[in-house]
Amino acid sequence: MRTQVAIIGGGPSGLLLSQLLHKAGIETVVLERQTRDYVLGRIRAGVLETGFVNLMREAGVAERMDAEGFVHDGTLIAYDNEQFRIDFAKHTNNHVVVYGQTEVTRDLYNARDAMGGTVIHGVSDVELNDLTGKPYVTFTHDGQSKRLDCDFIAGCDGFHGPSRQAIPLDVRREYEKVYPFGWLGILSETPPVDDELIYANSERGFALCSMRNANLSRYYVQCSLSDSPDDWTDQAFWDELKRRIPEDAADKLITGPSIEKSIAPLRSFVTEPMRYGALFLCGDAAHIVPPTGAKGLNTAASDIHYLYTGLVQHYLHNDSNGLDTYSQKALSRIWKAERFSWWMTNLLHRFPDQSAFDIKMQRADLEFLRDNDAAQTVLAENYVGLPY
Amino acid sequence: MRTQVAIIGGGPSGLLLSQLLHKAGIETVVLERQTRDYVLGRIRAGVLETGFVNLMREAGVAERMDAEGFVHDGTLIAYDNEQFRIDFAKHTNNHVVVYGQTEVTRDLYNARDAMGGTVIHGVSDVELNDLTGKPYVTFTHDGQSKRLDCDFIAGCDGFHGPSRQAIPLDVRREYEKVYPFGWLGILSETPPVDDELIYANSERGFALCSMRNANLSRYYVQCSLSDSPDDWTDQAFWDELKRRIPEDAADKLITGPSIEKSIAPLRSFVTEPMRYGALFLCGDAAHIVPPTGAKGLNTAASDIHYLYTGLVQHYLHNDSNGLDTYSQKALSRIWKAERFSWWMTNLLHRFPDQSAFDIKMQRADLEFLRDNDAAQTVLAENYVGLPY
Repeated sequence: MRTQVAIIGGGPSGLLLSQLLHKAGIETVVLERQTRDYVLGRIRAGVLETGFVNLMREAGVAERMDAEGFVHDGTLIAYDNEQFRIDFAKHTNNHVVVYGQTEVTRDLYNARDAMGGTVIHGVSDVELNDLTGKPYVTFTHDGQSKRLDCDFIAGCDGFHGPSRQAIPLDVRREYEKVYPFGWLGILSETPPVDDELIYANSERGFALCSMRNANLSRYYVQCSLSDSPDDWTDQAFWDELKRRIPEDAADKLITGPSIEKSIAPLRSFVTEPMRYGALFLCGDAAHIVPPTGAKGLNTAASDIHYLYTGLVQHYLHNDSNGLDTYSQKALSRIWKAERFSWWMTNLLHRFPDQSAFDIKMQRADLEFLRDNDAAQTVLAENYVGLPY
Repeated sequence: MRTQVAIIGGGPSGLLLSQLLHKAGIETVVLERQTRDYVLGRIRAGVLETGFVNLMREAGVAERMDAEGFVHDGTLIAYDNEQFRIDFAKHTNNHVVVYGQTEVTRDLYNARDAMGGTVIHGVSDVELNDLTGKPYVTFTHDGQSKRLDCDFIAGCDGFHGPSRQAIPLDVRREYEKVYPFGWLGILSETPPVDDELIYANSERGFALCSMRNANLSRYYVQCSLSDSPDDWTDQAFWDELKRRIPEDAADKLITGPSIEKSIAPLRSFVTEPMRYGALFLCGDAAHIVPPTGAKGLNTAASDIHYLYTGLVQHYLHNDSNGLDTYSQKALSRIWKAERFSWWMTNLLHRFPDQSAFDIKMQRADLEFLRDNDAAQTVLAENYVGLPY
């Protein structure tokens, strides 16, 4: 089997890249370990930057998102019983769109099907070979060993995938911070407590009121990493959430049975470089942000943008500059998103080793943000997404 | 002896308050432990916010400062071999004035002398009594026990003075962070390397190029707390400084013998409340900032502003509101200055426990600041001084 670009991973990054390249006349094959149902069952983020939305439009996959997504012109920041708003529209003339990653992925699968894109599910034993020579991917599918020759490989296979591991250790440099808490999240078929997200710093720990649509809410509370979702009844979750958000919000919160409940750890992670020979890492394969600030899927989108434009430049204009500068350009934006996610995580969570002075600094940061126009602009510009 | 306002401490805070109150017709007595020569011999900061400059003008003590001080419309931030400028004029339409604290103090002493102000030097055993009743200060002077009755006491006696200690422990709450390094500073009779200050983050640690006047430079390098000034020859200092600043600056640096060399620890400290009965804490008696960002003397100035206006309101308009809200108003601004000094210290120093990820975050912070207009505005607004 041969293709121009082998894409490892059939999540939103791999599918979006495949779709964009296909429309530009560049062949791809997507290899995915899981079934389509499994991929579509994963609950992930749902706050999209305009850069991501524009890529979806360029890929011709934006129709449902444009119809059903919710434009958010701002977000709410709460601490104790106080609350203030960051006005994205005022500070950036831009916004974000709330539209679940699951829906993004579904739309991309439908688009790939409609174009007859090749997505092979259930592959295992994926190996990336001869990355600095004539690259090819070997894998097992339906019990048979297969080989896929290609010009380039896009590693869109997430943090645990084989792509990053294929970069030799003497080339690869990794940076990591693991946060000493997790997010306990639930999904419930209830109307969101507010039209916008509420990020809350409380003395009991962080909480987030988010949403997927008018009757599907996503809520989180900071929890101990030693907790298990089974430790938390729905009632215990709702009670704790109400203690961490301003009284007005707690009073109007509509609760209901959870349809999903899970705990996610928080991590900052970056690998450098993001290119090795014919291999280009994209998204979680190269970097992870803590979810505070909703940058996860959006950092993947900027990688896809740089890689897609680089591949088009290469195939259609015989110019390797975009590919040659991929790692540097992608990383430059990634580190800014890492900085923002790290800052916002530090601003809003309680840390076990925080001194009374540290808590005062957090409070001073919040009050400065509440009062200072330029500080609000900094947050808004980062939240809606820095330019590509 | 009786006065209206007893002022403990004859540094710039106490003298400025005394001068302002005298001009408003309010009597003061200043008690100072050291001799005048000792006070004038202390080397301190020299970057004044406009708020401080305006207070000096209101006190009628600004003539020499206005003639000899240097207006700085910006500052330079360097990392490794790169350098960028924060333009205060562009971002805030404001500036700072470089004029040594020693000169400020000298001008204030001359003004106090000219008005016949009472400044008693060489006092010891200072005790603050009956703060919630009929306050008085006892002290020893010329071998004799003295008593000073008063309406109010201004505690301008610095971090180690008796005023803060006079607030009962069950009322007082203290917040502190001690940084794991010091600043080795030298004063040399050489022209400054640049017209503006250079704050440098280098992999060898922080450095600062500052100045007092056209032929008096003040330079600092981050050092270990276990270092002694005697460990550092002048040559070793200059060599280390040159390694930490951009090559262009190092090349044009003019070195010379140090006329002062000392190591200062870095500390963040705040005590709450800043008022207890008749006692009002001002400046270092209530709070300390690390010197990064030059906020020390300027935070004292905002306290003096609030206390001075409160006392004028009380004595001239029979309105206690300014005094009743002193602690809350002073602390609100202090915490913002603490936040800024802490942030700038974190941005520019190397910390012994910094991970590779932490260093990347510092770098991302610097590059974001270099590239982002709103982030530069945030720094500039804080540097020139937030409004009183």
